[in-house]
Amino acid sequence: MKLSQRKIELQLRHPFTIARGTSIVDPVVIVELEHEGIVGLGEAAPSSRYGESIESVQKFLSRLDLRPFESPFDIQLIRTHLDSLSQGDYSAKAAVDIALWDWVGKKLNAPLYKVWGVDRRSTPRTSFTIGIDTPEKIEEKVHEAEEFPILKIKLGGEEDELTMRTIRSVTMKTLRVDANEGWKRKELAVEKIKWLEQEGVEFVEQPMPANDLAAIAWVRERVNLPLIADENCVRLHDVPNLQHAFDGINIKLMKCTGPTEALAMIHAARACGMKIMMGCMIETSIAITAAAQLSPLIDYADLDGHVLITNDPYVGVQIQKGKLILPEGPGLGVTPRT
Amino acid sequence: MKLSQRKIELQLRHPFTIARGTSIVDPVVIVELEHEGIVGLGEAAPSSRYGESIESVQKFLSRLDLRPFESPFDIQLIRTHLDSLSQGDYSAKAAVDIALWDWVGKKLNAPLYKVWGVDRRSTPRTSFTIGIDTPEKIEEKVHEAEEFPILKIKLGGEEDELTMRTIRSVTMKTLRVDANEGWKRKELAVEKIKWLEQEGVEFVEQPMPANDLAAIAWVRERVNLPLIADENCVRLHDVPNLQHAFDGINIKLMKCTGPTEALAMIHAARACGMKIMMGCMIETSIAITAAAQLSPLIDYADLDGHVLITNDPYVGVQIQKGKLILPEGPGLGVTPRT
Repeated sequence: MKLSQRKIELQLRHPFTIARGTSIVDPVVIVELEHEGIVGLGEAAPSSRYGESIESVQKFLSRLDLRPFESPFDIQLIRTHLDSLSQGDYSAKAAVDIALWDWVGKKLNAPLYKVWGVDRRSTPRTSFTIGIDTPEKIEEKVHEAEEFPILKIKLGGEEDELTMRTIRSVTMKTLRVDANEGWKRKELAVEKIKWLEQEGVEFVEQPMPANDLAAIAWVRERVNLPLIADENCVRLHDVPNLQHAFDGINIKLMKCTGPTEALAMIHAARACGMKIMMGCMIETSIAITAAAQLSPLIDYADLDGHVLITNDPYVGVQIQKGKLILPEGPGLGVTPRT
Repeated sequence: MKLSQRKIELQLRHPFTIARGTSIVDPVVIVELEHEGIVGLGEAAPSSRYGESIESVQKFLSRLDLRPFESPFDIQLIRTHLDSLSQGDYSAKAAVDIALWDWVGKKLNAPLYKVWGVDRRSTPRTSFTIGIDTPEKIEEKVHEAEEFPILKIKLGGEEDELTMRTIRSVTMKTLRVDANEGWKRKELAVEKIKWLEQEGVEFVEQPMPANDLAAIAWVRERVNLPLIADENCVRLHDVPNLQHAFDGINIKLMKCTGPTEALAMIHAARACGMKIMMGCMIETSIAITAAAQLSPLIDYADLDGHVLITNDPYVGVQIQKGKLILPEGPGLGVTPRT
């Protein structure tokens, strides 16, 4: 097994602002895992929220030695090895896991949805994310998102009312709100969520900082909108501990170390009676398609990372009126854009 | 897709007694799912504990119409359909699910452990079950079980002390105890478990009736041996609700409707920090091998159902000094015994 990596810069369609900051390009690391002439593709989109950077990904991957393993079918052993190397490095581990599964699907000559026994027709519609911006820019973005029936709005700051008013002035589409831990007081969070309920919002993601789970549980008792855990829900073991504070979880491959654990989290959340969302970072079609292959098992998709960039080097999952359309090719079904 | 079924009578090596009764032959239903010239094998071993019988299995399967589905890859859709037909019928549903996965593995030309990304070398050692019997018969059985390093003892009745004394007089092997809901008073259960602790027992399965979970939680607070849920743990949604009363769960394909849900339960139990056991009924190598293909993910195996019979029509997983050895063939890797 030979693992190679390269950094690429993704050009954002719009400068992207959430509660934590603004960016115009986003780098990711693309991974190629070669074995027996078959190449599995993977991708790491590190998040500073979890102490990761392009450098930390590159370091993790360049130190990784897969020679002791027989083949990419050794997913269980390789994943145990990855977790023995460090506590974090979620996105680097996700890159390896995605590449392993892409290889397995290609080797078996079957798309991953078939390998995983999921129904390609049951994919959900994805939301399209509108970043924090000026009213003019927001209007422009809403128009660009015309074909998406569901929008996701980034709130969590001083401009919440203005942002919402601007959006509602141009569209009555279903809205989902991501506060990205932005509301710091529980009374404020309750007030905001009750207001959003009036605005026809479907659910609210991570209203308050992840380190105050008790406050979020307090908020939940006082509001009607479902609360979805994002920053609070990183890996499998987090899931049962969120039942009292959230109605659902947002699984991201870049947090949970890849599709293997994402699938486990889907099952754990179902067992707990929680709703399941899958989200993403700014990512190419590699990582987005990996998540999309699992999406027939979930309730809400927010898999638009590849739509938010202008230079996606790959083609994979397509979007038709918001609905995720899985590719038919083996593995991820992702090919280089020609 | 064409589904056929036939009933076969499994001859027990010894009349088999647990707290609920005694039997000498055990019937099961073998299922064959044919599509595109490939045959997937499945098996239902119904349990009266869950209101099932050979007749109920045959009725469920003969009414099942798989014609609306495209291929056995439609596992997600077919399972949703199965559950829409009835609340129970766990073993009949398991037969279909096993056959679907066997077909998928054969179609992909890969053993299921590869399809599921699990490590064939990480299979656990299985215990060998000693039923309730006379001291002479128990001695005989223990000798027969010579190659198994772990024995599972069925207790839960008047003869517990005698049974244990008899076994300990002939072997000092690791023992696991299954009380099959046999102890009806919580004080009695605590007393029994504290005594078993002295006898070098590893864990106790289902000490008390499943309908009194509060009593089991009460018992658990007063003993040191891990308690494993069997009758209390049927399907996925049961798992998180058992955390306060049990240390682990016993997953059986015949309770949980097959390997798809078994895998989900494994993940849910891991998320909850619970131990995972897989058990079985009296079954042929078809169902035992299906469970064994998942066993690299679990802590304790009790997959000896095919060893307890003399006329297993199939060959699949092998046992070497207790360790489960997975077959290399595609799908389950099960073939007719020649």
